[in-house]
Amino acid sequence: MTVLYDDIGELVTNDPAVGDGSPLGVLTDAALLVDGDRIAWAGPKNAAPAADRRVDCRGASVLPGFVDSHAHLVFAGDRSAEFATRMSGEPYDGGGIATTVAATRAAPTEALAANVARLATELRRSGVTTFETKSGYGLTTVDERRSLEIGRRFTAETTFLGAHVVPPDHRGDRDAYVRLVAGDMLAACREHARWIDVFCDRGAFDVDEARYILQAGLDADLTPRLHAGQLAPGEGIQLAVELGAASVDHCTYATDVDIAALAAGGTVATLLPGAEFSTRADWPDARRFLDAGVTVALATDCNPGSSYTTNMGFCIAVAVRDMGFTPAEAVWSATAGGARALRRDDVGALSTGRRADFIRLDAPSYIHFAYRPGVPIIGDVVVGGVSI
Amino acid sequence: MTVLYDDIGELVTNDPAVGDGSPLGVLTDAALLVDGDRIAWAGPKNAAPAADRRVDCRGASVLPGFVDSHAHLVFAGDRSAEFATRMSGEPYDGGGIATTVAATRAAPTEALAANVARLATELRRSGVTTFETKSGYGLTTVDERRSLEIGRRFTAETTFLGAHVVPPDHRGDRDAYVRLVAGDMLAACREHARWIDVFCDRGAFDVDEARYILQAGLDADLTPRLHAGQLAPGEGIQLAVELGAASVDHCTYATDVDIAALAAGGTVATLLPGAEFSTRADWPDARRFLDAGVTVALATDCNPGSSYTTNMGFCIAVAVRDMGFTPAEAVWSATAGGARALRRDDVGALSTGRRADFIRLDAPSYIHFAYRPGVPIIGDVVVGGVSI
Ligand SMILES: [Zn+2]
Ligand SMILES: [Zn+2]
Repeated sequence: MTVLYDDIGELVTNDPAVGDGSPLGVLTDAALLVDGDRIAWAGPKNAAPAADRRVDCRGASVLPGFVDSHAHLVFAGDRSAEFATRMSGEPYDGGGIATTVAATRAAPTEALAANVARLATELRRSGVTTFETKSGYGLTTVDERRSLEIGRRFTAETTFLGAHVVPPDHRGDRDAYVRLVAGDMLAACREHARWIDVFCDRGAFDVDEARYILQAGLDADLTPRLHAGQLAPGEGIQLAVELGAASVDHCTYATDVDIAALAAGGTVATLLPGAEFSTRADWPDARRFLDAGVTVALATDCNPGSSYTTNMGFCIAVAVRDMGFTPAEAVWSATAGGARALRRDDVGALSTGRRADFIRLDAPSYIHFAYRPGVPIIGDVVVGGVSI
Repeated sequence: MTVLYDDIGELVTNDPAVGDGSPLGVLTDAALLVDGDRIAWAGPKNAAPAADRRVDCRGASVLPGFVDSHAHLVFAGDRSAEFATRMSGEPYDGGGIATTVAATRAAPTEALAANVARLATELRRSGVTTFETKSGYGLTTVDERRSLEIGRRFTAETTFLGAHVVPPDHRGDRDAYVRLVAGDMLAACREHARWIDVFCDRGAFDVDEARYILQAGLDADLTPRLHAGQLAPGEGIQLAVELGAASVDHCTYATDVDIAALAAGGTVATLLPGAEFSTRADWPDARRFLDAGVTVALATDCNPGSSYTTNMGFCIAVAVRDMGFTPAEAVWSATAGGARALRRDDVGALSTGRRADFIRLDAPSYIHFAYRPGVPIIGDVVVGGVSI
């Protein structure tokens, strides 16, 4: 069955070969033909092909569904009290992760799955049509495997993050924990994961530990992605480039050398505005990355401690306000950028053959995500050709 | 008819005499009895009186509806392109107001009313149960009067803001414009307005012009409220206190002397996080006001140029992140603070006899406005006892 989405005032294709020639590939007065779960055609509305059904977009903006390449959805518990305390002046040091680990281990599997379902619904309603999720709140072989099994019910983009923090029960012997992650835990988790991730930062894992774990992941056919540079400068960003990681995430304290390495390599830099927002941290300057030619993604980092948002529109507004993105760059990073960070060429753009994953706004332009911060402007979300 | 809202996990009453003794007057495991359009009782759920009907709140948080004491809803046009340009580096100087004035004058009355209706619906859905709106995009006697007539269809809290800027057609003779505002325009507008406002700031009206216009308003039985200190320090804040204004709004550049005057006087300071957010301006430090004992309100400043948000939850999140409010202070300021800024004692709290205007969250605590930024957590909005 073919469906023509007609009378689109502004169609963001992310195909620079069409439209205005910008990276967003914006077509005005456009139409979009969907055949089953795929895009069949995009172009000027007065040249639209015939279709079985027509949906009138009444001049609204249509853009690719958001691709959220960084989230932590498998967890139990709520840390709002810790948040309120932090907003009365205490700094964020990642220490609260242990609270979530204890709650997650104690939770029944179906309770964890119900929580992921709730957050996945929030993500979808906010326009996210592809998302990644990580383990990392189990931190035992059994609990990490369980987290990935649960994540897999909701997305193919699952990441093994046994190296989130050294859990309290291994504080006396971190080497043993690193060996466990790279050994038995990885062996138990690999079948449910596509990616392997390490939190390589001050107070988490150092660059040698990270290299050891990620190399073990590579040997098990998992592709690396990293948390690095959130809390302090370090060697994690360059390690990511060295290992051919798909993405290195946070990058708040990226040095000029880090940025040069990213620009020369093939690793995406994923910025996570929700994390700086919710920890009152200093903002990374996205212009340093963008102007150097680094491929930049924006993601939610949804997690109960440092960034409990599922709203990519909010992340775009903050990225524009506080990180120096233009509205166009932010929208590109939240769609095409996220797709690159997940090495997906079937999503993140609206050109022929891609998945029919897109958003119709209750607004005339994608600029409204930043221009009207906090205002719900998602009109309709289409996933694989189906309106949800 | 009486309705018992039962099994409320967290009830914010804003009545310091009940609950935890804080300004929010928080009751846990509570219930709320509504009789017609009024609150009849609030207390522990196991002491709840009988009612004709029972609504199960399932442990959620209930709080007073937001009172948005500062908005500019009567206008035509969209300035998203100007916004996108500004986000590429140009500063905000208020100059774009003239664009909206031209569009507003040219718009049919019913088109203006439809735009207010759309924004009022957004406000309601975001939990705002009382809002103010201003004229100020007409700037002729006929157009200002028309704006107030339209605003009055939606709210009793209308403000005559003929002194928003000197319109282009009066640039050569600003004294004549000031006399017009304080004379014929005021005379034509007063029957549709409760308040009179002047934008007393760099590039707008100076303190002598503001005093002249506001005194004329006082003589016509309108109570002053001011825009002051948004763009530069000045005498506007102290003028507001001197004239007994209900509120002085923005206060971004308040001096220590201004804050001492506010603390000693009866004027509310209304902070407008959306304006700083959308103009990339420096944040006022709310702690200076709060710690000095100033009564502080939070409002949206919804307008198409410098703060095009209707979402009070977003304003709370940003106020906590960037202005130094605790989550509790921000929620108080967006509810009870707004009521004080409008000198309303029937709204802004959930104690016996007040209007039954409240919000049931899809969340266990008001902290979630800041803890889960951008996430839609408004479950139900009740206005005068009626769920909308
Ligand atoms: Zn993360
Ligand atoms: Zn204003």
